[in-house]
Amino acid sequence: MENSFTDRMTQDLVLIEEYLKNAFVAEPRCADLQEAMEYSLLAGGKRIRPILTLETCRLCGGDVQAALPFACAAEMVHTYSLIHDDLPAMDDDELRRGRPTNHVVYGEATAILAGDALLTAAFDQLTRADLPAGRIVEAVKCLSHAAGSAGMVGGQALDMAGEGRGLEREELELLQSLKTGALISAAAELGCIAAGGTEEQRAQVRTYAQALGRAFQIRDDMLDVTSSQEELGKPVGSDRINEKSTFVTSLGLDGCAVQVELLTRQGIDALSSFDNPSFHTWLARWLAGRNR
Amino acid sequence: MENSFTDRMTQDLVLIEEYLKNAFVAEPRCADLQEAMEYSLLAGGKRIRPILTLETCRLCGGDVQAALPFACAAEMVHTYSLIHDDLPAMDDDELRRGRPTNHVVYGEATAILAGDALLTAAFDQLTRADLPAGRIVEAVKCLSHAAGSAGMVGGQALDMAGEGRGLEREELELLQSLKTGALISAAAELGCIAAGGTEEQRAQVRTYAQALGRAFQIRDDMLDVTSSQEELGKPVGSDRINEKSTFVTSLGLDGCAVQVELLTRQGIDALSSFDNPSFHTWLARWLAGRNR
Repeated sequence: MENSFTDRMTQDLVLIEEYLKNAFVAEPRCADLQEAMEYSLLAGGKRIRPILTLETCRLCGGDVQAALPFACAAEMVHTYSLIHDDLPAMDDDELRRGRPTNHVVYGEATAILAGDALLTAAFDQLTRADLPAGRIVEAVKCLSHAAGSAGMVGGQALDMAGEGRGLEREELELLQSLKTGALISAAAELGCIAAGGTEEQRAQVRTYAQALGRAFQIRDDMLDVTSSQEELGKPVGSDRINEKSTFVTSLGLDGCAVQVELLTRQGIDALSSFDNPSFHTWLARWLAGRNR
Repeated sequence: MENSFTDRMTQDLVLIEEYLKNAFVAEPRCADLQEAMEYSLLAGGKRIRPILTLETCRLCGGDVQAALPFACAAEMVHTYSLIHDDLPAMDDDELRRGRPTNHVVYGEATAILAGDALLTAAFDQLTRADLPAGRIVEAVKCLSHAAGSAGMVGGQALDMAGEGRGLEREELELLQSLKTGALISAAAELGCIAAGGTEEQRAQVRTYAQALGRAFQIRDDMLDVTSSQEELGKPVGSDRINEKSTFVTSLGLDGCAVQVELLTRQGIDALSSFDNPSFHTWLARWLAGRNR
């Protein structure tokens, strides 16, 4: 059973990587810019967001192929956010997924533009889905809310504003639900939208993804303390160095582990009325336990 | 006649300013971020792009109110591009429309995020139009193409890459058609899309707007040489200082004036089959002659 799920994830990954690889082939306006966009977009990564889109589409009875542009749109938004977050004016990170960050390789100007172009391309991708116009409009609405000032960008702004001062637990929860949770949730919802799912299904999918997103972020904070640079592909201990409030500083490592388990169960429970949520159950457990 | 056109433009401006002022009222996630977004979005400016959207919608027989979200989406994309272009890593400008640029006031991190949020908000705006879903999808396609790596961002990347070396006339034409022309053209096309115009009408509108955009950019290059900081609200002579290739270095001031006149006529001619293009004729002449 375990094996069939990893096989299925691998199949999803093949679809995603293939799609992303060809996304900008026809747009050779500026070679440097395109190279910078693809440098980050094709740098691997777990592709959790597009996998969520494809699998939630399947869960809601939709066609995975039709959902691919939605899936890759979510990944483009994620990639752009990493490029901009790594900039010297933001987190000033020089290593990402084991490679120099975008601005280290291409310079700040091109990195800013590559991020801008990927964000813009995400919305173009949504329109390429072979789906009814109404679903595409719903997808644009969903992704723009999750990515914008009331979502991911708002979370990053709160993060920058909170650096160097202690954040209350609730502030940290809000910050992370915006910065990371909103896009993970939107990625899952995009699959439901692609499948033409009901409002009720979408709400259940949202609850699942939000719990997953929170567990994921708590696990991330734990890894920054317990892992090595080789394992993570980026420097560890940066939260402490930057005096960032994290779930580890707020809950301790043991408290974090309890929360991850609790959230994972909450997420799994949210999908109990679906016919066959076993892949999603496995995925939640896999994400909660990664790198242990 | 002249007066009735300026009155009409003033009425459009009232609609636009009112709409923009209320665009982010319901999104108070991060006060700093919202302030930075509004600082640049509500800084005045000529609002040429949204006026083009509204007036082209009218030209094609559509409802101006329904086109307002499209119009303001185009202005948000324009505003975001100014914020990012002004950043230290890009053009490093400290003055814009007579006020300190966004990053001077709010810092680089917030300025980057404010730009990101405005770009994202533009696509959200498109979905708010009370129009058939098919037209909204067409609008997302149109705006994302014009704004992305095959359009505005591509042009800015070419601009950065070309700094300090002489550009051939054709390179300069391509660069400007992407950097400035694409969005001006899209703004006009969005009006046609909102009105449910024909493909033929859209092509004519595109020809008009592209000619206008080129004339506008040539005039801009001229003003950088002939105008004062007080008149422009930003430092003059910056092109020369940055060793930028411009239409003035390529054609000379007299050559530029001839081109502006030629392009303005071309633009006006493109709309000859419409019932009443007189406002567009006046607008083209007004833009060509501004600040003389």
